[in-house]
Amino acid sequence: LIRTAIIGASGYSGMELLKILSSREDIALEYVFANSNAGKYISEIIPSMQSELDMRFENYDAGLINSLDIVFVSLPSGESMKIVPGILSKGIKVIDMGGDFRLKEPLMYEQYYKFEHSHRELLSESVYGLSEIYHDEIANADLIANPGCYPTSILLPLIPLLKNGIISPHNIVINSLSGVSGAGKKESFDCSFTEVNENIRAYKISDHQHVPEIKQVLEKEINNKVSFTFIPALVPITRGIHTTIITDMQIQLKEHDIYDSYKNFYGNSSFIRLRKNPPNIKDVVNTNFCDIYLKADLKNNKLVLISVIDNLLKGAAGQAVQNMNILFNLPESFGFIKKEKHYV
Amino acid sequence: LIRTAIIGASGYSGMELLKILSSREDIALEYVFANSNAGKYISEIIPSMQSELDMRFENYDAGLINSLDIVFVSLPSGESMKIVPGILSKGIKVIDMGGDFRLKEPLMYEQYYKFEHSHRELLSESVYGLSEIYHDEIANADLIANPGCYPTSILLPLIPLLKNGIISPHNIVINSLSGVSGAGKKESFDCSFTEVNENIRAYKISDHQHVPEIKQVLEKEINNKVSFTFIPALVPITRGIHTTIITDMQIQLKEHDIYDSYKNFYGNSSFIRLRKNPPNIKDVVNTNFCDIYLKADLKNNKLVLISVIDNLLKGAAGQAVQNMNILFNLPESFGFIKKEKHYV
Amino acid sequence: LIRTAIIGASGYSGMELLKILSSREDIALEYVFANSNAGKYISEIIPSMQSELDMRFENYDAGLINSLDIVFVSLPSGESMKIVPGILSKGIKVIDMGGDFRLKEPLMYEQYYKFEHSHRELLSESVYGLSEIYHDEIANADLIANPGCYPTSILLPLIPLLKNGIISPHNIVINSLSGVSGAGKKESFDCSFTEVNENIRAYKISDHQHVPEIKQVLEKEINNKVSFTFIPALVPITRGIHTTIITDMQIQLKEHDIYDSYKNFYGNSSFIRLRKNPPNIKDVVNTNFCDIYLKADLKNNKLVLISVIDNLLKGAAGQAVQNMNILFNLPESFGFIKKEKHYV
Amino acid sequence: LIRTAIIGASGYSGMELLKILSSREDIALEYVFANSNAGKYISEIIPSMQSELDMRFENYDAGLINSLDIVFVSLPSGESMKIVPGILSKGIKVIDMGGDFRLKEPLMYEQYYKFEHSHRELLSESVYGLSEIYHDEIANADLIANPGCYPTSILLPLIPLLKNGIISPHNIVINSLSGVSGAGKKESFDCSFTEVNENIRAYKISDHQHVPEIKQVLEKEINNKVSFTFIPALVPITRGIHTTIITDMQIQLKEHDIYDSYKNFYGNSSFIRLRKNPPNIKDVVNTNFCDIYLKADLKNNKLVLISVIDNLLKGAAGQAVQNMNILFNLPESFGFIKKEKHYV
Repeated sequence: LIRTAIIGASGYSGMELLKILSSREDIALEYVFANSNAGKYISEIIPSMQSELDMRFENYDAGLINSLDIVFVSLPSGESMKIVPGILSKGIKVIDMGGDFRLKEPLMYEQYYKFEHSHRELLSESVYGLSEIYHDEIANADLIANPGCYPTSILLPLIPLLKNGIISPHNIVINSLSGVSGAGKKESFDCSFTEVNENIRAYKISDHQHVPEIKQVLEKEINNKVSFTFIPALVPITRGIHTTIITDMQIQLKEHDIYDSYKNFYGNSSFIRLRKNPPNIKDVVNTNFCDIYLKADLKNNKLVLISVIDNLLKGAAGQAVQNMNILFNLPESFGFIKKEKHYV
Repeated sequence: LIRTAIIGASGYSGMELLKILSSREDIALEYVFANSNAGKYISEIIPSMQSELDMRFENYDAGLINSLDIVFVSLPSGESMKIVPGILSKGIKVIDMGGDFRLKEPLMYEQYYKFEHSHRELLSESVYGLSEIYHDEIANADLIANPGCYPTSILLPLIPLLKNGIISPHNIVINSLSGVSGAGKKESFDCSFTEVNENIRAYKISDHQHVPEIKQVLEKEINNKVSFTFIPALVPITRGIHTTIITDMQIQLKEHDIYDSYKNFYGNSSFIRLRKNPPNIKDVVNTNFCDIYLKADLKNNKLVLISVIDNLLKGAAGQAVQNMNILFNLPESFGFIKKEKHYV
Repeated sequence: LIRTAIIGASGYSGMELLKILSSREDIALEYVFANSNAGKYISEIIPSMQSELDMRFENYDAGLINSLDIVFVSLPSGESMKIVPGILSKGIKVIDMGGDFRLKEPLMYEQYYKFEHSHRELLSESVYGLSEIYHDEIANADLIANPGCYPTSILLPLIPLLKNGIISPHNIVINSLSGVSGAGKKESFDCSFTEVNENIRAYKISDHQHVPEIKQVLEKEINNKVSFTFIPALVPITRGIHTTIITDMQIQLKEHDIYDSYKNFYGNSSFIRLRKNPPNIKDVVNTNFCDIYLKADLKNNKLVLISVIDNLLKGAAGQAVQNMNILFNLPESFGFIKKEKHYV
Repeated sequence: LIRTAIIGASGYSGMELLKILSSREDIALEYVFANSNAGKYISEIIPSMQSELDMRFENYDAGLINSLDIVFVSLPSGESMKIVPGILSKGIKVIDMGGDFRLKEPLMYEQYYKFEHSHRELLSESVYGLSEIYHDEIANADLIANPGCYPTSILLPLIPLLKNGIISPHNIVINSLSGVSGAGKKESFDCSFTEVNENIRAYKISDHQHVPEIKQVLEKEINNKVSFTFIPALVPITRGIHTTIITDMQIQLKEHDIYDSYKNFYGNSSFIRLRKNPPNIKDVVNTNFCDIYLKADLKNNKLVLISVIDNLLKGAAGQAVQNMNILFNLPESFGFIKKEKHYV
């Protein structure tokens, strides 16, 4: 039995963690911490959980967690770094869902997150939890920095093609469309129904805090400079990310061969699906899949990549559980995909 | 030239007023007061107005309005009653968009609005601005209490049939579905996209502050007691109200005859449309119409009424302008409906 | 191993059946019949199933199903009655998702479904599959007529109160709001995004084909006449039904006592949840729950009931699987709810 | 009085034309042709027009239009070319809303529209109706090919910068997001609510029929080759287009200077608005504006352009009326913008 707790359990990602973890027989979810809702039953905040899980949210108390195996932290940026060192010092593993341990360069926090990092020593220790790419490091990590939702949708299609030299590391253009749950559970005029509905709005063009995260991973993977323009936009859907990436082809390959290159790269991965037609967001909502499609525009020497994920699952709670599975030596898809059937 | 100002001009109803008033040649919109946005240009808050109206929002200052003819007040409940007496004392007419002057019985404010009314003397003076019903009183009023959005959609179909004795004043069941703009422009978790989208939620069942407003008007009209159950619900649309009313028929009439009874009652009204099929909300959005449909269920002796309005126009700013037209002896539809064409 | 097949597997209810049945270890889904998509892989029609279930849709062929235990039929009205007798004659059990075997009175098919029933002898044999009410009959049935989505949301809150005499069987008013998937998977102008979005439209007022279904069940349960007015409306959401029922109280009870009456009635049911606040549709989407809320309006002697379900699960495929569980002597919630936790 | 008719008046663009034209005092809308709805009153098909315009749709009859000044044609691709020559031969001016007369190279019709053009001689005569760019040619045209919705949103931001040499004519990446009304009024599974809602789907990547239209205009304007990748996608909104264009800067300019360059170029235009923040689709819905925003990414030498329009107005019916205004020597904004106010 894996003994665990969630810190920050009443936000949207925390709620998804709650649902996944509470449904598993091999996991004991001992505490659900949520200071803002401490004392309330889960079902008061998340009525859909009524009669499924009847725990109370509690104030976070470091003294309670001593005997746990792993803790999931789902707090706003800048909050996590205050408590994670204490948890690690108890010998408990941590999967942090926020950005506090993703970047290796402390100054990036000042530039993009607007805070000074108080535990820089952990930045070199933390393992970036992009499951399909860093499986082995994750398996041995104490602190996993779970990737951001946009970066997950961007890195998974880009890394194989960059590593294989199929596309150029420069002149990459990324347009990502995100559902509103990506902004978190909060009172906000910008996220009110009347502002979002029947609307589309780009924001933080090239300034988004996920820019250094994407850059750091891509440059590490190819050991070279990478340049891209990233344009996120908010669309009137609750869940999901739709990412379109336009790249310069460096090697003239047929689409079929590029798909093969993905197959070789992601051969063992449960959650990467290669798609023959442009994928719909709804094909992946409520799943941990990342669907990838490609289309060559040979006349312009361009390769267009499209990926879709559920921002709360593969982009947050789902990938966190995938990482926990890796940490505890379980199949990555344990608890996600039921049985494999192969009728043809 | 009618000289006017809006107090509370940056909310959703205020914005609609801005658009209607600024488009009219016969109106001089002298000030747009909005304390929360004072100093900003309208287009900073309402980008759709850029290059159409380039005024600045100002802090409300009673000293500025002395020479105006009429003022529109669009403030949260309990705020309007603090400033309206001062405006009236200058001899300026007021159309109040909120609830502060709608109810005749002061105690109702304590029960439903949770505040004590500070200017009870005005409650008997104010005229309820349901344009089609109180045209003559409105024409002579100093203070017009513009009706609530739900009551407008409910009173217009009910009053003619109650007055004619076609339906019973008891056992009335009212289900109203409202778009989210009805809740006003504010930061609110309940009105966030992620909570409203793909969802429906009933609220304030039989406790809504519009209950005493509806009751007061119906009972005045038939000079008798009326009883009804009112169930409002929030639906994932931005604008519009869809009201379904189920009543007991007192006189067995054919549907055609009941339509005729409406035609006789509303003969001169520009904004009442009788519909042969259940009306869509989208048929009236961005208009000042109230569409009414009826269906007799003779087996059960029931008459079903359906009405739809745009909550921000006929349910707020549109009816306010209609009332201003009445006050200034203009055709009710002035500024709304361009020209009448009758090709057949 | 329960051997089964779905006939009509590519519609919205069929798709949900596919997902539930293919995820269960104890079920062998041998065939997925869908004449309109015969020859195609499931993932071509339902991309979200890619890498989860790789069967092909086939043309229905009675010769293939001889050794099955149970067949799910999800066909348009009037189609099912043509093939079900043949399946039953092979000794195979049938759960029919459509309306063809729900009504006992053959003439009702002519009036409400506009076809003449070709197998009237089966109408008296079929068992109405409202799981919580007819558990014992279902357990022994050969042909289960799975209830309609609206009736499920209406009957579950009404039956206990009518049987206990708490509410009157007359003067019942029912307003149901349905998501668009309830209309099925088809090309239809009325169900196009541009027509449904930002809109609400009532339809088939008191003429809906679910009216005789509701009436038949209620009258059977109380062995007396029942009268109600039913007003369905289409709302811009994909899944879910929100039903509001206004009834006359016959016995003056406190809300708490009426909740207790439900608890007594539904004591053993996994899927009925009593709610203290008006339920949201999103609380039950993607689940098999029916959430019920009540509010007494003592001044008017009215009791308001609100229920919400997922129209494709508790209103179709979920209840069908619940019925299969009953048939095969499994816990009703088998395959739906993982484990029960009771921390307090 | 301008005497006119609409051919294809019951589609979404036709409906907008109907509303604009019928509201103008200076226009006599003599006929509304719509073969599929011939004989019906406008209000039967467009209930929102009830009591505003009570004409009947008629079958198109060339004999009826002899005395008209101008005709608007809003028919599916390939239909318009069959009737326009006949109309022109009567000396009547034509504004064609479809693609039949936009392309100069007949073979492009075979490649992108999949039909052979039957009146190639008109392709050289027709004037491309991008109002802000081709004002003078439009003023003297007999046949105006009204631009496509995507091209309008793409050409208006690109042309000034390409002509000024600020950006490179190569390596342009265009992502356009379109509301569903852009697909026209039809029965279509792909445009059904259940498929579009909570979803995003790219389509026709680099194959869209608007690609040759965009290319032809840009290359004519700079008299040189242009290369771009165009990725359209469908988003769950009814109206509006949001276009993001990423270009290579050729001259290092400050954002402020590029805005100035737009101001110089579009100095007299009523419908171009330069925006300081990323524009929302909702800022332009129900207007004829095209809002343009730009952001320099100097590190990557990129210039990001964002434009938004209402696809049915500036992208169709609105621009058509703007072109009619030009043809009849009226101010471009006549009938759109009421009065200009300049309080500061």
